[in-house]
Amino acid sequence: MKRKQGLLFVVSAPSGAGKTSLCRAITDSLENFTHSISYATRKPRPGEIDGRDYYFVSQQRFQDMISAGDFAEWAEVHSNLYGTSRRVLDDMVEKGIDVILDIDTQGAKQIKPKYETAVFVFIMPPSLEILEERLRNRKSDHEKEILKRMGRAREEIKDYPMYDYVIVNRDFDRALTELRSIIIAERCRMRLVNSAWIEGMI
Amino acid sequence: MKRKQGLLFVVSAPSGAGKTSLCRAITDSLENFTHSISYATRKPRPGEIDGRDYYFVSQQRFQDMISAGDFAEWAEVHSNLYGTSRRVLDDMVEKGIDVILDIDTQGAKQIKPKYETAVFVFIMPPSLEILEERLRNRKSDHEKEILKRMGRAREEIKDYPMYDYVIVNRDFDRALTELRSIIIAERCRMRLVNSAWIEGMI
Repeated sequence: MKRKQGLLFVVSAPSGAGKTSLCRAITDSLENFTHSISYATRKPRPGEIDGRDYYFVSQQRFQDMISAGDFAEWAEVHSNLYGTSRRVLDDMVEKGIDVILDIDTQGAKQIKPKYETAVFVFIMPPSLEILEERLRNRKSDHEKEILKRMGRAREEIKDYPMYDYVIVNRDFDRALTELRSIIIAERCRMRLVNSAWIEGMI
Repeated sequence: MKRKQGLLFVVSAPSGAGKTSLCRAITDSLENFTHSISYATRKPRPGEIDGRDYYFVSQQRFQDMISAGDFAEWAEVHSNLYGTSRRVLDDMVEKGIDVILDIDTQGAKQIKPKYETAVFVFIMPPSLEILEERLRNRKSDHEKEILKRMGRAREEIKDYPMYDYVIVNRDFDRALTELRSIIIAERCRMRLVNSAWIEGMI
C-alpha cells in the first residue's frame, strides 16, 4: 500500500510560537518524513548550521534563484529573504516522502495554489503576552527587533483562516503530539488509499 | 477554548477487523471522550455485559423504539437489530463530549445526512484471508455463520468510499495509534477554533 506521492505539510506561526522546535522534533520521530531546508539570506544565529537549519546564501545568489524560477515559494521577512527550492520539494514528493515546510504565511499563500493537496497547520501562541515573553527570553533580539516581531505576529495571525488545523502551543509535548497526530491522520485519508487493493476484495 | 459541541466519530468495519477492541481501547485513553452504547436484540456473547457492551432489549421493545423515532440510526445485521439512541447522542454532543459510534455501514449511511460534521473511519482487515482466519479463531461462530459473515464483509467493504479515513488493522497498536491520531487531529480542525479568541489578538 505504498503511496505514489509524498504529502506536503505547511507549518506557519508567528516567530516565538515554537514552530522551529516543533518541526525539528517531529522530523526525528516519524518514518518516511523530512523537513524541507529553506534558503536564507540572513546571517546564521548562534547554533545554526548551514545545510541543516538553512542554506545560507548571498542576496545576489537568492535574486538569481528567483529570476531562474527556482523557488516553490519565497518571502521577505524582516528585510531577509527566505525560499524553498521547487526541485528539492518535487523530488521528495515524487519519491513518496512526506515533507514538512516551516514557512511564513506569505510563503504558505504561494504553496496553496501550486500544491492542492498540501495540508496547512498554524501554530498559535497561547496569548500575545506569552509570545512577547518568549521573544524576550531568547535574548538574541534587541527591544526594537522584539516590537517589530510583535507587530508582524499580529499580521501573520490575520492569515489564520487559510489553515486547515490550528495547534495552540501552551505545552510543547502536547503540541508535538497534536502535530504528529495531524500527520498520521492525514496519511490515513481515504483519498490516499490504493483503491485497486480494496476493489480487489469485493 | 472549550468547544461548545462534541464531535461524532463513526467507525465501521467488517466483523473480525478489530473494530470493537479498537473502540474500547480508544475510549479508555482519551479525555472528554465516550463510546456510544448501542441497543441490540441479540443474545449477549460470553463476556458481554448489559449496559457496558450493549443495551440488550427484546425485539418488541426495539420495534417500539423505532416507531417512537428514538434511533439516530438502526440496522438489521444477521437477523438481529442494532440501534443508537438519538437522545443519548445529542446529550453527549451538547455537553461538548466527543462520541465514538461503532456501527455498521447501514447505520453510518443514516448518520451522514443527520450529523454533517461527523467524521467517518473505516477499519480494513489486511486481507480477506486474514479476516476469515480471525473469525475462525474466535471459535464462537459455526461454519455457516463464518461464511455468512465473509459474504457480509464484502458487502460492507463496498461502502468504503463514503468514509473520510481508512485504517488497515495489521497491527493492533499501530491501528490504535492511527485511530487516536485521527481523533486528536480532528480536534485541531480550524473550523472548531474559537475565532473570537484569535480575532481578539489582531
